[in-house]
Amino acid sequence: MSIDSTNSTDTLARLAEVIATRRPAAGGDPEKSYVARLLSKGCDAILKKVGEEATEVVMAGKDADRDRIVGEMADLWFHCLVALDYFGLQPKDVLAELSRREGLSGLEEFALRKAVGREAQSDALLSVVSVKGER
Amino acid sequence: MSIDSTNSTDTLARLAEVIATRRPAAGGDPEKSYVARLLSKGCDAILKKVGEEATEVVMAGKDADRDRIVGEMADLWFHCLVALDYFGLQPKDVLAELSRREGLSGLEEFALRKAVGREAQSDALLSVVSVKGER
Amino acid sequence: MSIDSTNSTDTLARLAEVIATRRPAAGGDPEKSYVARLLSKGCDAILKKVGEEATEVVMAGKDADRDRIVGEMADLWFHCLVALDYFGLQPKDVLAELSRREGLSGLEEFALRKAVGREAQSDALLSVVSVKGER
Amino acid sequence: MSIDSTNSTDTLARLAEVIATRRPAAGGDPEKSYVARLLSKGCDAILKKVGEEATEVVMAGKDADRDRIVGEMADLWFHCLVALDYFGLQPKDVLAELSRREGLSGLEEFALRKAVGREAQSDALLSVVSVKGER
Repeated sequence: MSIDSTNSTDTLARLAEVIATRRPAAGGDPEKSYVARLLSKGCDAILKKVGEEATEVVMAGKDADRDRIVGEMADLWFHCLVALDYFGLQPKDVLAELSRREGLSGLEEFALRKAVGREAQSDALLSVVSVKGER
Repeated sequence: MSIDSTNSTDTLARLAEVIATRRPAAGGDPEKSYVARLLSKGCDAILKKVGEEATEVVMAGKDADRDRIVGEMADLWFHCLVALDYFGLQPKDVLAELSRREGLSGLEEFALRKAVGREAQSDALLSVVSVKGER
Repeated sequence: MSIDSTNSTDTLARLAEVIATRRPAAGGDPEKSYVARLLSKGCDAILKKVGEEATEVVMAGKDADRDRIVGEMADLWFHCLVALDYFGLQPKDVLAELSRREGLSGLEEFALRKAVGREAQSDALLSVVSVKGER
Repeated sequence: MSIDSTNSTDTLARLAEVIATRRPAAGGDPEKSYVARLLSKGCDAILKKVGEEATEVVMAGKDADRDRIVGEMADLWFHCLVALDYFGLQPKDVLAELSRREGLSGLEEFALRKAVGREAQSDALLSVVSVKGER
């Protein structure tokens, strides 16, 4: 156990290491380990949990219940780590992507990537509005 | 930019710090910053993004597209950080919760918390099965 | 049982009627009825199922598995009916809203409602792009 | 426009017919029709909307805002109809499945299908609890 439990490198990387030991191929026992069971159930079961826990975060957020937000987000991130392991990825891959975006163009660039797409979409819709307005 | 961009403490804490500077109350400009705009739109807009990005992770996972899984999970975690900021929380709160669970009883304990509830649920349903079986 | 089982008025309204008989206040027994149990667990449990079943529809869709799409969408709609009942609403309220939109301005109007908001959003983001482009 | 706008056969089947006319192959114009645009964007765009609208239903439900619940559920069902069309299915397929379940064994049977799976799951977890309890 880390002295500083809020060190996320330790926390996420360490959790990922433990999850890796639960893989069926690594001897993880689905009868004894929740993670081994989930990994053995496969893709859909793992992804379903990601969706479920995100809904829980949304509901905790709507209640503005800070303790539950923390708890549900821990559930969400944990199942994200299981998903990463299932696909042969690691938390550091996601963190590197977050850093890369920050490095490239400041924090906002990554959001703009999607926003630009949305603008093109809105252009298309703008013509619908016009068409309708002309009726 | 951190030398070791995969250090999640640096990455998540640093992102959280930048997000904090985008708060409307801290002078964040919704016209210039995606995060400032999202924070100013409030709870529903932020939580909606958490739900959306989780769905994107699920779809990338179904495609087993590792690059997209990393990208969508970065989106998901990023919007989680925005949500945490909105509720006055920090990534270290979530990481501490993850560590706490690991410390308490090994990795599986936290999953069992929910599983026990599910068993009680199944007990109730078991009686439905019995009732139906007797018909 | 309706002769024409694909008549949605019969189907949805009839399901809603059965769900109403499962309300705890109407004598629904959580030990014997899944719906009574869900209704007695309340808002979060019901809404969580809506989120879960939507994720299942997404995954079935990604597999392009038509039988599972039908099955998961039946699950989703069913839990929507439970949610409607919980909030004192009926399927006909949703159907009336769908008809109203169709009546008002053709099928597309209702989508435009949201699209217009998204355009305003994109305008704001456009200025971010400009600001960034000028750097 | 139907006299009785709450007749769901009319509503859902009629909406499905209109959606079918928006298919790109049927001459639907993505520049003028939201549905044509969504259908032409394909599987992921459509499924993403199902996930998004489900999150909106959850948030409206958490606010217990009945008007918004109706509005968001109309959005959700509408995008479900688009998804059905994309996969060559019709609302009556989902309604028939709902009727079939009702016919087979009463309203609860379909929930038990999943519950039985969950029991098996809980059995597995029960052994984890035991193992942990013995420590």
